[in-house]
This record gives sequence, structure tokens and C-alpha cells, in this order.
Amino acid sequence: MRFLVVNCNTSREITRVIEANAMAAAREGTEIVAIEPAWGPESAEGFYESFVTAAAVLDTVLTYDGPFDAVVMAGYGEHGREGMRQVLEVPVVDITEASAQFACLVSHRFGVATTAPAATAGIEDSLRGAGLWSRCAGVLATRVPVLGIHQDNELTLDALVETGRALLDLGADSVVLGCAGFAGLDRRLEDVLGVPVLDGVACAVAAAEGLVGLGKTTSKHGPFRPPDPAKTWTHWPRALAGKNVGARTMATDRSSP
Amino acid sequence: MRFLVVNCNTSREITRVIEANAMAAAREGTEIVAIEPAWGPESAEGFYESFVTAAAVLDTVLTYDGPFDAVVMAGYGEHGREGMRQVLEVPVVDITEASAQFACLVSHRFGVATTAPAATAGIEDSLRGAGLWSRCAGVLATRVPVLGIHQDNELTLDALVETGRALLDLGADSVVLGCAGFAGLDRRLEDVLGVPVLDGVACAVAAAEGLVGLGKTTSKHGPFRPPDPAKTWTHWPRALAGKNVGARTMATDRSSP
Amino acid sequence: MRFLVVNCNTSREITRVIEANAMAAAREGTEIVAIEPAWGPESAEGFYESFVTAAAVLDTVLTYDGPFDAVVMAGYGEHGREGMRQVLEVPVVDITEASAQFACLVSHRFGVATTAPAATAGIEDSLRGAGLWSRCAGVLATRVPVLGIHQDNELTLDALVETGRALLDLGADSVVLGCAGFAGLDRRLEDVLGVPVLDGVACAVAAAEGLVGLGKTTSKHGPFRPPDPAKTWTHWPRALAGKNVGARTMATDRSSP
Amino acid sequence: MRFLVVNCNTSREITRVIEANAMAAAREGTEIVAIEPAWGPESAEGFYESFVTAAAVLDTVLTYDGPFDAVVMAGYGEHGREGMRQVLEVPVVDITEASAQFACLVSHRFGVATTAPAATAGIEDSLRGAGLWSRCAGVLATRVPVLGIHQDNELTLDALVETGRALLDLGADSVVLGCAGFAGLDRRLEDVLGVPVLDGVACAVAAAEGLVGLGKTTSKHGPFRPPDPAKTWTHWPRALAGKNVGARTMATDRSSP
Amino acid sequence: MRFLVVNCNTSREITRVIEANAMAAAREGTEIVAIEPAWGPESAEGFYESFVTAAAVLDTVLTYDGPFDAVVMAGYGEHGREGMRQVLEVPVVDITEASAQFACLVSHRFGVATTAPAATAGIEDSLRGAGLWSRCAGVLATRVPVLGIHQDNELTLDALVETGRALLDLGADSVVLGCAGFAGLDRRLEDVLGVPVLDGVACAVAAAEGLVGLGKTTSKHGPFRPPDPAKTWTHWPRALAGKNVGARTMATDRSSP
Amino acid sequence: MRFLVVNCNTSREITRVIEANAMAAAREGTEIVAIEPAWGPESAEGFYESFVTAAAVLDTVLTYDGPFDAVVMAGYGEHGREGMRQVLEVPVVDITEASAQFACLVSHRFGVATTAPAATAGIEDSLRGAGLWSRCAGVLATRVPVLGIHQDNELTLDALVETGRALLDLGADSVVLGCAGFAGLDRRLEDVLGVPVLDGVACAVAAAEGLVGLGKTTSKHGPFRPPDPAKTWTHWPRALAGKNVGARTMATDRSSP
Repeated sequence: MRFLVVNCNTSREITRVIEANAMAAAREGTEIVAIEPAWGPESAEGFYESFVTAAAVLDTVLTYDGPFDAVVMAGYGEHGREGMRQVLEVPVVDITEASAQFACLVSHRFGVATTAPAATAGIEDSLRGAGLWSRCAGVLATRVPVLGIHQDNELTLDALVETGRALLDLGADSVVLGCAGFAGLDRRLEDVLGVPVLDGVACAVAAAEGLVGLGKTTSKHGPFRPPDPAKTWTHWPRALAGKNVGARTMATDRSSP
Repeated sequence: MRFLVVNCNTSREITRVIEANAMAAAREGTEIVAIEPAWGPESAEGFYESFVTAAAVLDTVLTYDGPFDAVVMAGYGEHGREGMRQVLEVPVVDITEASAQFACLVSHRFGVATTAPAATAGIEDSLRGAGLWSRCAGVLATRVPVLGIHQDNELTLDALVETGRALLDLGADSVVLGCAGFAGLDRRLEDVLGVPVLDGVACAVAAAEGLVGLGKTTSKHGPFRPPDPAKTWTHWPRALAGKNVGARTMATDRSSP
Repeated sequence: MRFLVVNCNTSREITRVIEANAMAAAREGTEIVAIEPAWGPESAEGFYESFVTAAAVLDTVLTYDGPFDAVVMAGYGEHGREGMRQVLEVPVVDITEASAQFACLVSHRFGVATTAPAATAGIEDSLRGAGLWSRCAGVLATRVPVLGIHQDNELTLDALVETGRALLDLGADSVVLGCAGFAGLDRRLEDVLGVPVLDGVACAVAAAEGLVGLGKTTSKHGPFRPPDPAKTWTHWPRALAGKNVGARTMATDRSSP
Repeated sequence: MRFLVVNCNTSREITRVIEANAMAAAREGTEIVAIEPAWGPESAEGFYESFVTAAAVLDTVLTYDGPFDAVVMAGYGEHGREGMRQVLEVPVVDITEASAQFACLVSHRFGVATTAPAATAGIEDSLRGAGLWSRCAGVLATRVPVLGIHQDNELTLDALVETGRALLDLGADSVVLGCAGFAGLDRRLEDVLGVPVLDGVACAVAAAEGLVGLGKTTSKHGPFRPPDPAKTWTHWPRALAGKNVGARTMATDRSSP
Repeated sequence: MRFLVVNCNTSREITRVIEANAMAAAREGTEIVAIEPAWGPESAEGFYESFVTAAAVLDTVLTYDGPFDAVVMAGYGEHGREGMRQVLEVPVVDITEASAQFACLVSHRFGVATTAPAATAGIEDSLRGAGLWSRCAGVLATRVPVLGIHQDNELTLDALVETGRALLDLGADSVVLGCAGFAGLDRRLEDVLGVPVLDGVACAVAAAEGLVGLGKTTSKHGPFRPPDPAKTWTHWPRALAGKNVGARTMATDRSSP
Repeated sequence: MRFLVVNCNTSREITRVIEANAMAAAREGTEIVAIEPAWGPESAEGFYESFVTAAAVLDTVLTYDGPFDAVVMAGYGEHGREGMRQVLEVPVVDITEASAQFACLVSHRFGVATTAPAATAGIEDSLRGAGLWSRCAGVLATRVPVLGIHQDNELTLDALVETGRALLDLGADSVVLGCAGFAGLDRRLEDVLGVPVLDGVACAVAAAEGLVGLGKTTSKHGPFRPPDPAKTWTHWPRALAGKNVGARTMATDRSSP
């Protein structure tokens, strides 16, 4: 099977981190295609950047030419999840939802350690929308900005350890890494904290493998019924190419078996 | 005072309906500037169109050149509210939140009569986010599409009456018009149903007049602290002009006293 | 338009503070009539005094002789809101609900700084009833009693600053003044805290102006349908005049266009 | 032990029904003193009457001269419960809360069959305040007014049976009688419906016997700490006698060991 | 009346403590029969022991030969409550639910002081299931293990005092003893803390006396309808006697009038 | 990897259905060992049977001799999940939680079609405990008893179709099969209803493959810290062998890589 893993920002460096992480988590036979939007901010931290990013990620996936069996949305706490599910038939797995679900299977309450304080409110909204808020002990910021994560891995790990301990004090017995850029630090954090640490991209790849393996596709009965293809669109990006998106948003011409 | 009232879709016809409605609601001395995005779908009904629209509306407001004292977001149930609040200092009043608030002041439970069934899930999310869901008796669709509202006003009114009665059966004692395009039908629906009927644009204009009159601006302390202006953006619309938005999203250069 | 602004206690001094505050907030053409009950406690702090006060305020408004277009209930967190809505057709705006609503339009989470610890439980109930609790970060007491607020404005301001900071630590990004007597301190507190500070009476006047301007009246369809006028009442205050209230509680003979 | 059972309205007839019911439920050694307010409406159905009634019941109990070991508030869904708890040390048992609690012990979900439609919203608020709403399957009105209950017991029973069946359809497996005036009909309704039927006064008497037997009194640590006795009150009823209530609201001069 | 009071663990010593406590709380004429399971752990602290204990307690009651009018489940926060209600017609009163209910009648918010940290999560679940969580200010562990309570009563009391104070800081104005083994310490703790302290067994006996006195039995209409007696069971304990339980679980052959 | 899939009842026939289903869902390299308890009821429908079953399943797994990498609890809505997580280090995946999680990834709201009406209340509790209730549109019974599912597959399918349609009317856009015995009917139901249909065992196997593949184990930090091995147990089943369980419940001596 072949997964389209979409970084939510325009940073190629973060795309590569995500790609390596997804490949490490994928089982044999799962192909990973990691992409990022052609436009938008280099990182998304807070409501404004997240709403722009939602449109950019939708545009990116809808203008991607090759076949894929599932989409992994690799921006932690970012908007757009329900919109992507509406325009695709293949499963859409958001790293926020998938890692919280897996955390619920191996712990009683999870906590989220994210990057900037600006991101926590949106993450809470995302978890509420996913129906998993009652299992969350708290969302705390490490104060490491997205683009600073890999400048000094040891400093980042120290911040994660401190934040993770604060989450345990709030009643968490597992920790979810609240940024796709934290990839690769889960094992080390697990060793220090002694509780399960869940990485979003890894969990999302595993959940997508499960769904595709079971032959499940996204419901087209309710709010995820595709939008009206006849509606007129005025030149929006469509990956900056000026095409009329409306005419091609049907899920069926995207998914490939 | 001068309000920027933003239609969420690219239909100029709907912008004119919204403008007339806002002007009718505004008191003397309030100037209404009604605009719509330069790009995106001609109507937004459902998650996908709503997420694109959120970005389009943000882009439209951030590239608007004149001064304004408040923004009215004139798309019922659409995304982007929290993002707009982050990038502006002037008050941002969303018609979904404002009309639900006013309905709460004149009734015990309100119901929402919207357009397409595709829109109801997003409206519920918006009301939950606004913290007003516990006062809502239900969200029902008239099955009149946004672009069909003004093709036959009598048919639209009939559909609103039927939907309104169904909402009263669910326990509502007021009705909120769940689409900016329903403007002008509130009085007639009120006459038939015998309960308060709230129009979003009218309520939002009145709430904005209140906030501006009291000298209130949007908090910059928490999640609405402006995004980092130094962040690199890759050409996104910025109203299709290719400017780097990041450098100019500071709230302060938008608002005018 | 003409608003009846009702202090909830018998202190004329506090009525005058409220009146000045309402007049400062009102726009040109809005007439403010500030009254207080003829009976009851000189301040209401806690459940018992609040329940007596609810009856006193209802009695006061129902025996007021002149015309009015809206009632502003100027007791923060006090009982009686739903009862007043039942017996009047004109809009009834409670300062607790109105200031929380306005706070929701300019911030992500509000906190309430009130007077005595005895008042916090009732305020929480009032916000829950208004459906706005999920947007509230906390209710904290300054420990300044209602009747002590104006004895030393600087001490009061100091207490508000300390309480306001504690609310920001709880996640609030705006502060609501939780007592009508705090009127006039909002600007100064705003300057110190750097977040929006909402005064209840000012917000309620603005919301009432909005509702009256839009021609909205209180729903008579559901639980606010007027009580049976034929019911026999045994001499209750009716402003201590011994009249049978039941025969004159119809909303219609109170409101004036 | 000696219980003060307070009817919430001025109807002596209903007081006698309540008294008989309380005496039937009480065990040997429990003395029942049933009283009603000297002022207010002859029945309370809806918010306005309920708020007046709350003050009347508080006034009635605070001016009652004899000793008592507990108060039973015998108005279903009426306001004032928390106020009464603040001014007394002896236990205060509200029939709404007590019957819902007992229903929770013998069923999975209870439903409430009340009198007028006007009463249902207040009952829901009361159950929410008591923290028992999640166990309630619904509150439905029989449309029998309080004062009509005993005009034709068979008609009343028929209405209760129909309403009870509607509650079972909503998922209830027990029924609470939502008016003190329904006293005496619980056994007959139980026979027809085949589920437990709980009478408020009976349950409240039993709960009060339990609390008094265990020597429990109302907490004076939190929001039920007594109001300040030094506060000036302007002539309020105090059972129409013009006494200053404030000086005598201390719980201690009410309770008798 | 005759109550079967079931300890949830196999410790006879704790059964005797419970028995003495129940007898002290019972009024004249109430006979207490205290028993414990023939199998299972000597104390239940945490999910695993609690689930085994649930089965053991069910087995113990269903194989008890004598008549009884109510069952008191004397394990704080333990599982099995709904199962017991399904197989019996007589009232089943769980100490967790009964003491929380009584606490709600004499305070605004209660806190629970339990034994081991392992027990708190299950207690929260139990209170949520009982629908009383919104009245609970917190559940804290004294860190005194069940079997250590009576080794040094003074140390236990000290731990309860410290935990009780922490609960008051969380907003509680009453304390519930979160283990049947704490019996006898409620009065002393009450003296120190100055708030009502509720003992589970005492409250449950009082509530059962109330229910039996009113002639109430457990609903057989909904989820507590008895299981199918014709179902084949493979030798499970049935108090280690290998009898087929299924054939005799009908509530009616257990209860005695 | 090797999974222990535990049927919750003693019916070998149902174990075989579950085993076939798990094997069909498992990917190459996953070994399925399906077992059932040596004692207890032949099917679990309702609270009583479910609580006995919880203990039986715990006993069965703890006395199983071979190695395993994860446990799949194959009883839909049954108790015991948190107890199993406490005594094992390997992941414990409950079919109720896993199928609801997967449904959340491919739809907006899921509905549950179960067997007997007696089972619905326990299923709701299980979904609430898993934190997924807000995504559930309803739980409805097909009225096909567990042991009758395979007597006539066509009748069972008809009942599932009818129940599935009722769930869609409640707002579901996916259906979860609420009994392990429904295995094999998901594809056929999917064809008729046109929405995703999730089978619990299949989803749980896939989720367990994901967790084991990522090297995740159950948290031992909070409420799932193992019980005290030194505690004395009185002969409980331990698969009817009379061994003292307490001494061997440590998670570590169960799991094998």
C-alpha cells in the first residue's frame, strides 16, 4: 500500500524528518510518499497559521497526481481533518487523533507535550472534535518552537522531559509528542519517563495500515459526502496553478486501489 | 465607526444581500464596507469548502487596504474565527456566535435553521467552540442551497417555516437563521412562528457596535497573540498577489481608531 | 430608548454608581433609569441573600410605573434572570450573561474577579445556566466585600490586579468584573493587566441597545410564557403595597414601545 | 425527631396533602410539622412564581418559632435550596434532589412526570444543580395543573400513566412524581407501570431521618457559611412583620438538638 | 428489616469492622448480617482486584441462604453495583453512591479521602456512573493501605486530616471516607476539619432503611431485568460449590418480604 | 507476533467464529490463539453476566501458559478492560474501544448495533469509559440473542440492516458491530447500508498489530501499576485450580517477546 504523508508547512527539512519517521514505522510493503504544500508558512503554530495551512494541505493533496491508499495528515493539532475526509474516499488519518487513540489503548490518561504556547488552544479543540478530550490530562508547551527542535536535540529532549514530568503530575500516565517534528525522540523520552510515549506520525501510519488492510474507506453518507462538483470556483491556488478545483474534488478520482 | 463585513464566498450577489442587511441593522454613524474573497467557491456548504473559505477570508481581510474598526465574519458556521482574532486587534464578530448570544438573551433555547444538510456538522462544531451548544435545541437543514435562497423567496420562506416548527418541537423557543443569505426573512418568519428570529449579520453588527462603543479590542495575551512576523512564508494568495504575508500580519497595522 | 437598570440590593449609593456607569456606556438617545428594591439586604453575597434579592428585584420591576424598553439586571451572578424574562416582553439583559458574552467575542477564555468568596458558587451556577461555563477559566474572589469597594479605590484596584493575574495564570485572556460595584475600574485594570476587562453594566447596556435596536423581544413560546394571571396571590410585597401581583404580571402591560 | 415540612405555595389544601404524605412515610418517633408561606402564589409553576416562592419559603422557615431537626422543602423543582442550606445548620432536604437520589438507587435512569409544561425547564435546572441530570431520561408534563390534581384523581392518574409510559420510552426504568401534590398516587402508578415510582415528600422524609439519625448537619465551611448577621436589611416580609432578618439568620438559633 | 452487608474482600477483620459500623448506624429493628466472600483477595485496591471482587461479591450474595430485605455493598468504589441490581429485587445500596448522595444533601461539593493511589481511578469511574461526579471536588489517596488502617489509628487519622484539608483546598466542603475500613473515624475527623464527614456504610444502611421503609424495590423494566435463567453456565464458583448459577439468579427467590 | 484473543463466554462455537475472524484480519506473521474461559455463562448479555465474565476472562489470561505479545478482549461492551491492563505489560486491546476508534477515523459519528436490549447500558458505559461517547450517535439492539446469531444468518443480517438504518437516522454515518459473534457480516452489511461497518475483532487485531509493531506496552505508572504480589488471596478459580493468584499477577511474568 502507498501512503501520502503530508507535512502541514512548507519546510522541506521537516518533511524529511516526517518521511524518515513514517518509513521507520511502516511495515514492509508500505510505501511512504512525503510531501509538503507549495505555499504557506514554514511552520504552523497557532490559529491563523493553522487555518491557512489547512487550505494549503487540502490543495496539496487534491493536486497530487499519483495514486495513494491513505493520507496521513502530519501536522499535530492542525485544522482541516474533516475537510480532507470529505474530499477523499481513502482513509484520512490525522496524527493528533491517531496518537491519542493509541495512547488510550496503553494508558489511562495521556498528556500532550507540544511546541509553542500558541499551539495549545488549537490542540485542545482538535482533541475535543476527535472526542478524546476526556482521556487527556493536559496539553503543555515545551516552549521549543517547531523550527528550533532540531537545532539542539539535547535541549529539546530536556524540555520534553520537563514537560513530560509536569504532565505526569497532572495525572497522565502516557505522553503524546505534540508536533510531527519531535519524531525520533519518543524512545529516548520513554526511557527517561518510564511511561509510553507516542509519536503521531508513527501511530498514524500504523492506524492507516490497519484501516487499509481491513479495506475500510471514509463514509460518504453524512457530513463527508463529497462537495458539489458543479459549483463554480474562482481561481484559488490549486497548487498555484489557477485550475478550478470544484470540478475535480470528487473523492473517486483521487483514490487508487 | 467603520465595519468590514466579509462574505465568506465569492458570490457578489450574496455580498450585496449581506451589505444591505448590515446597513439596515447599523445605527446612524456606522459605515458598512462589504467585501468578498477574490478566490474560492461561490458558496460554502460543508467542511471542505469551509476550510478553503477560512483561508480566503483571512487573506481578504489582511490585504484590504482601508481602515476599519471591527470585522464581521458573515459566513454562518464557517471556520476561521479564531484565526481572524489572532491577526487583528479590532474586534472580530462572527455571525454564528453573535446571533446565538443574542438568541440566548431573549429565549431559553435557540434552534438553527440552515441551508444544506452538509452544513449542520460544522455549525455544531462552531457553536461548541463558542461555548453555546448547551443552549441550542438543534440544528436543522431547510435543504435550500445557499445559491437557491433568492431564486424563490416564497419557497425559501416555506422551508424556513417548516424547519422552524421542527426546531420548536425540539424545545427551541427562538430560531437563528443559519445562513447569511437568509437576510431579510427574519421578520416574516417571526410573524409566522411567533418567536424571536435572529439574523446573524444584524446581530453581529449590533454586537460590534457595542464592543467598539465600549472601546474593547481583542485580547493579545493568550492564543490570540499575533503570529511571529519574522516567519518565512512561501507565496500564498495574499489575494493572489504573491506577497509574503508573514511580515504584515501584525494586528496593529490593520486597525484604525 | 429607555432602560430600567435595577440594582439588586437596597444600597442607594451602589445604585448611583451603577447609574453613572450605565450612562457612561449608553449611546446618545438612550435614557437610563436606575432603581433599587424597596426591601431586602444592602448587598447580596451568597445564596440566601441572592434568592431574597431575586424576589425583590422582580417585585421592584413589576411595580415600577413608567415605560421602559429593556431591563438591565445589575447584580452580578444573582438569581432571578429567568423569572424576569417570563414576566416581561421587553428584553431582559443580565450583567453576568452579557459581560461573559462580550468577553467571549474578544478573548478565548474569560475569568471572573468577584467580591466575597461566598459569591463564587452562585456565579458558577449562573454562568452554567447561561451556557457559557466552558469559556470560563475560573471565578476568584478579591475578598473585597461589596460595601467596601468604594471605601478605598486603590486597595480595591490592588485586589483586582492580584485576582486578575491569578485568573490569567488559570488560562484566562480576559477578565470580567464580577460585581456591579466595580464600575469604573475596568479601564485602569485593563491598563495594568494588558487584557480586555469587561464591566457588566456597560456590556448589558450595549447588548440591550443592540436588541432593542433590532426590535427583538423575549420569547413567549416556551418557559418564558407569562404566568397565569388568574392565579390567586396572597399579599406579598408588591413593593410592600399589598397588591395582588398575580393579576398584573402580564408582560404586555409593562413594556412600552 | 421533628421535621419542618414546607409547602412552597400558599394553598393550605396542598399543605394538608403534603402533611398526610409525610406522616405516612415517617417512621415512629418522627414528628411532622407542615407549614406554608403566609404570602405568595397559590401554586408555583414556572420561573417567576418559583423565584418568589423561594423567598417566601426562606422567610417562612426563618420566622418559624418552634424547634426542628431538619427541613423538608416540599416544592418539586422549586428554587431556594442552596439559600436554605446557607441559613440553617440542620439538614435541608429538597424533594427534587431526594427523590432523584432514591430513584438512582433502584433504577438505571429515572424520568420525571410533572404538572405544567412551564415547570419542566426549572426542574431540569434543579436536577443539573443537584448533579443528577446524567441519570435522568427526561422531564415530561402531564398537563395537569397543580391546583387541578385533586379535582379528579382518576383523570390525574390517567395522565400520569400516559406520561410515565412516555418516560419509559425515553429510557427511564423508574418514575419520579414531579409535584408534591401528586402524593398518594405513587403506589397506584407503580401497579400500572410496573416500575418503581418515587414520591418526593416520602423520599425526603426518609433521607432526613437518615441524616438526622447519623447526626449530620449542613456544612458551614464553603458557600453555605451563614450570611453576615451585621448587614442592614430594609423591611422585607420576614413573614410580613417587618423585622430585620439579617440579624437573626444565623443557623444556630434555628436548629434544636 | 434484615440487611445483608457484604464486605468486598476476604478479610474477616474488616468484615467485623463493617458489621460494628453498620450496627451502630442502624436503627432499632434493623438486623445486620455482615458477610464476606469465600474467595478472592484480602483487600481490593485497583482495577484488577476490584473486578475479581465484583464477581466474588455477586457469588457470595447469590449463594447466601437466609432471607434479607436489602443488600449493602460495603466496598468503596468497587465494581459490580449494576450487576447486583440486576439479580435482586430487594434494594441494593452501594456505599460509594449512598455516601456521595448524603454528602450532596449537607454540602455543596464533597471530596473523597481513600486509601491507595491505585484506587482513585476506579472511584472516579464509580462516581461518574452514579451520576454524581459534578458534585465531587476531588478524590485523593491517604496512602494508608486498606490492611494498614487499623494498625495505628492515630497515624490513619493524621493521614485523613491531611488529605481532608487538601480536599477542602480543592473546593470540597464535606469529606467522604473512601474505604469501608475507615469506619469509626468519621466523628473524629469531623471534629478536626469542621465539615461533615460521611461514612459509606453508615450512609448506605440509612438509605436502605429509607428505601425498605417506603417499600421500594429495584426496577426490573430496563437494564436490571433479570438474566435468562435458562442459560447454561459452566462451573463457576457459586461459592466454590460448582452449582449452576444461571438457573437460580432470578431475583424473586432471593428476596424476602 | 502472537496474540491471545479471548472470548468472554464459555461457548467454544463462538470462540471458533472469533478465531476465524481474527485470522482473516491478521496480516501474515501474526499468530492468533483464541481461547475462552473454563467457567461462567455461555453468553454475556447484561451487567451481571458481564461482571462474572470479567473475572473469568482475567482468570483465563492469567493462567494461560504460553507466550503472547498482546491480548485482544473479544467481548463487545464487556467489563474488565482496565483490570486486564493493570496485570499485563503487553498491550490489551478491547474490541469495543478499538472498533469505535477505527470508526472515528472513517466517519463523523458511529452507531452500535448490538444483540439484546440488556446489553446497551453496559456498552454505553464502556464507550464513556473509553472517552468515545461524544462520537457515538446511539446504541441499538437487534434483539438477536448472542446464541441465536448463527442459527439463521439471513435473519440476523435482516435485523442488522434494520438496526443499521435506525442508527443512520440517529445521525450515524458508520456502524459498529456490537457483538463478537456478528463476525463475517460486516462486508454484507456494508454493501446494503453503503457506510463503513466495523467489526470489533478485526479492528482490535489491526490495532494490536500497530501497537506491537511500534513496540508499545501498557503504562505501569498510574492506575495500571501492577497489584501488590504479596497480598493473600483465598482460593479463587485461577482457572478452577485453586492457586493463589496474587503471587503471580505481575505483568512481567506473562508477556514474552
